[in-house]
Amino acid sequence: MPRVLGIDPGTRIAGYGVLDVHRDGRPHAFIECGVIRLKPDHALEARLLDLRTGLVDIVDRLQPTVIAIERPFVGRNVQAAFSIGEARGVALLIAAERGIAVRQYPPAQVKSTVAGHGRATKQDVARLLRLQVTMPDGRVPADATDALAVALCDAVHSAPLPPPQANLLR
Amino acid sequence: MPRVLGIDPGTRIAGYGVLDVHRDGRPHAFIECGVIRLKPDHALEARLLDLRTGLVDIVDRLQPTVIAIERPFVGRNVQAAFSIGEARGVALLIAAERGIAVRQYPPAQVKSTVAGHGRATKQDVARLLRLQVTMPDGRVPADATDALAVALCDAVHSAPLPPPQANLLR
Repeated sequence: MPRVLGIDPGTRIAGYGVLDVHRDGRPHAFIECGVIRLKPDHALEARLLDLRTGLVDIVDRLQPTVIAIERPFVGRNVQAAFSIGEARGVALLIAAERGIAVRQYPPAQVKSTVAGHGRATKQDVARLLRLQVTMPDGRVPADATDALAVALCDAVHSAPLPPPQANLLR
Repeated sequence: MPRVLGIDPGTRIAGYGVLDVHRDGRPHAFIECGVIRLKPDHALEARLLDLRTGLVDIVDRLQPTVIAIERPFVGRNVQAAFSIGEARGVALLIAAERGIAVRQYPPAQVKSTVAGHGRATKQDVARLLRLQVTMPDGRVPADATDALAVALCDAVHSAPLPPPQANLLR
């Protein structure tokens, strides 16, 4: 069964979310989500090493078959792009080292998949994600939600449900 | 003796340059420079892994005590910032894993150190670098030159020469 790890990379906090992809029409199964918090007073290189350690732990423990990550887009400011890039480099490196497939999705496709349109707010995405994925009760950090949204986007696009007609005929 | 590895990070080509830092007023000693070319038709994550392999080889072979790298600046376009960030993440991670000190310099400081002013052209930097570092004859790739310039910047700023008066009195 495909297991997708969505990553929302960052050099201060990084989100992750893991789903098992069901190809038989059942909802995709929530496995785990959370954040890796990096110490703000540590040097950048030390934070990247902590990020690597955290992600390697998740990958070794949960054994995803796919890593899903947003494709960078140009609407960000340059300083944010450098930071996200640094964290992306660490995440993508782990995928390559372990031979885990990488799939990237534009942010608008993630929003559109989870919330129905590409300009959905973060709140819309978080609310509609909960309707499609059984998440833990209580507050889920925003970065973990974002990571799960990317994972769901991959689950949906890599495993098309049967066409609607088939459902109507049952 | 401090040995500085300058890195000009990129996800298509990355430059490196290594100098031994002389604190006694002798010119800093050129050790090696070059580029790591990444296969343009490979996936990003595969290129980042090749970059890691290439940099680890250089680090293990040449045993730098410092890694010098340009501090990102906001004048770049966002897409370039993502790519440079990804390659920076890989380079900084290696430094953290090996316990090698990292020092970052703004591009204007690198230019100013090598060529005398912060708005020097690439050609100025390349020409004036050759006056200060004994480089191999023949063409040196631009990315290797840029990496050596960062290394020289670190050599100069981490190892101040004796004050000019002392030289005048000799």
